[in-house]
Amino acid sequence: MSQERDKPAVVLLSGGLDSATALAVARDEGFLCHALSFDYGQRHRFELAAASRVARAGGAAEHRVIRIDLTAAGGFGRSALTDRIAVPKDRAASPGPAEAAPIPPTYVPARNTIFLSLALGYAEVIGSFDLFLGVNAVDYSGYPDCRPAFVAAFERLANLATAAAVEGRGVYRVHAPLIHMTKGQIIRTGLALGVDYSLTHSCYDPAPDAAACGRCDACRLRLAGFAEAGATDPIPYQSPGG
Amino acid sequence: MSQERDKPAVVLLSGGLDSATALAVARDEGFLCHALSFDYGQRHRFELAAASRVARAGGAAEHRVIRIDLTAAGGFGRSALTDRIAVPKDRAASPGPAEAAPIPPTYVPARNTIFLSLALGYAEVIGSFDLFLGVNAVDYSGYPDCRPAFVAAFERLANLATAAAVEGRGVYRVHAPLIHMTKGQIIRTGLALGVDYSLTHSCYDPAPDAAACGRCDACRLRLAGFAEAGATDPIPYQSPGG
Repeated sequence: MSQERDKPAVVLLSGGLDSATALAVARDEGFLCHALSFDYGQRHRFELAAASRVARAGGAAEHRVIRIDLTAAGGFGRSALTDRIAVPKDRAASPGPAEAAPIPPTYVPARNTIFLSLALGYAEVIGSFDLFLGVNAVDYSGYPDCRPAFVAAFERLANLATAAAVEGRGVYRVHAPLIHMTKGQIIRTGLALGVDYSLTHSCYDPAPDAAACGRCDACRLRLAGFAEAGATDPIPYQSPGG
Repeated sequence: MSQERDKPAVVLLSGGLDSATALAVARDEGFLCHALSFDYGQRHRFELAAASRVARAGGAAEHRVIRIDLTAAGGFGRSALTDRIAVPKDRAASPGPAEAAPIPPTYVPARNTIFLSLALGYAEVIGSFDLFLGVNAVDYSGYPDCRPAFVAAFERLANLATAAAVEGRGVYRVHAPLIHMTKGQIIRTGLALGVDYSLTHSCYDPAPDAAACGRCDACRLRLAGFAEAGATDPIPYQSPGG
C-alpha cells in the first residue's frame, strides 16, 4: 500500500497501543512519519518514554515532544490524568458506543483539539497535509474527542485555518485509521504490521516501576483487546488483572 | 447591555488594539472576563506587558499567560514573528477583503487554532461557554484564521470536542465582535467603551524601548484606523510614520 511514498505525515504518538498502531498504518501507507508527543503534565508520564521507543522501533523519521502544561498548576487540571482526582478502577472493560457511556474523569478538557491544533501548526511548518491519530470510537473510554464527527470537524477547520490550505498548496486530511475498529481488530492489525506492543504503555496509573495497574479503563480495554485478538499482552502488570 | 451579568468568558488578549476592544465589548455585555495571553516566542514580546496592563485596566477578573514555544527552536517558526524572517514594512495599509490579499510572512502557522483550542480547554475547566477574540476580516493582515468561516468552524468543533457540550451543560459560542468592523469602527467602539489605547501595543517589530516602528502592517493598519476614527493614536512611534 505505498501510494503515499515519502509524503510527510504528522502522527500523534502517545506511546499507547492505539497510536503505535496508527504509526504502523501510516508507515505501511508509505508516509514519512513525523511523530509528535506531548508532555502535558500527565500522571502517566511513562508514556513519553514509551513514545520514544515506539517512534524508533516504528520507523518514524523524527520524534518531537511538545511541552504544554495542562495541570492545575498551569491553570488547567480537572482530569484524573492531570489533577488530584482518582483514576477509576475495575469498571466494565467496554463501555460500548460513544453516545451511551458517561464521560469518565480521565477526560482531559479539549485535549485532542489542543494536540491536533499543534499538530496542524507543525504540519504546516514541515509542509505536510496528513495528520494521523489513533482514536477509536468502538472500544474506547467515552471521550467526545475520539468520535468520527470530531475528526471530521477538525479536518474541516484545518482547511479553513491555514495559509497552506487557503493558498491551495494542499488539502489537509485527518486520518483516524482505527476509528471503526474494535480493540481486538486494532491489535490484530498492529501485529500483522509488526508492531512490538511490549514497547507500548497504556495504564493511566502505573506503579513507580511502570508496571501497569491492570484495573484502570485503559488497562481493561487493552487486556480485553488482547483476549479478543487471541494474543498475549507482553507488558508487565502489577495486579492479577494481567 | 448586561444580559450576561457575571457569566464567565475567556477572552484572548494579545495586548493589541483589537483584543483590548474585544475585552471591553465582553465586559460591556456583562461577562466576567478571564483573559488569556500566550508567550509563544513572539518577536514582539512587549505585547505581553501590554496585555497585562490592558487586562488590569479593562477589568478582567483574571489574566493568565500560557507558554507554548512556537519558535524554530520549538520545532515551529516559519513566521516573521517567530523566526529569522524580515517583518514587511511600508506595504499598503489596507490590503482589503480576505480573499484578495496574499497571506503575509507574519502569519504564524495555525496560531488562532492553537490559541482557541487552549482557550477552549481553559473555558471547560472554569465552566465557561463563551470565548471572545478580537479578529477582524475587514482591515486585517490577510490571515486565514481571522475570517468568519474559521470562527464558525471552530465553534462547531468546540461543541463536538468537549465533555461540557456533549453532556449538555452548555453550548460554546465563539464571539468575534469586531469581525465585520473596519479598524476605525473598532477604535470608535473602544473609545466609546473607555478603552485606554495608550496601554496597547500593535507593532510587530518594536524598538528596544518598545516604540512602534510605524511601518509594519500592524502599525499601518493601526494608524489608518485612528485616522479613520478621527482620533490620535496615543502610543509613541520611532519613525515619521506616527
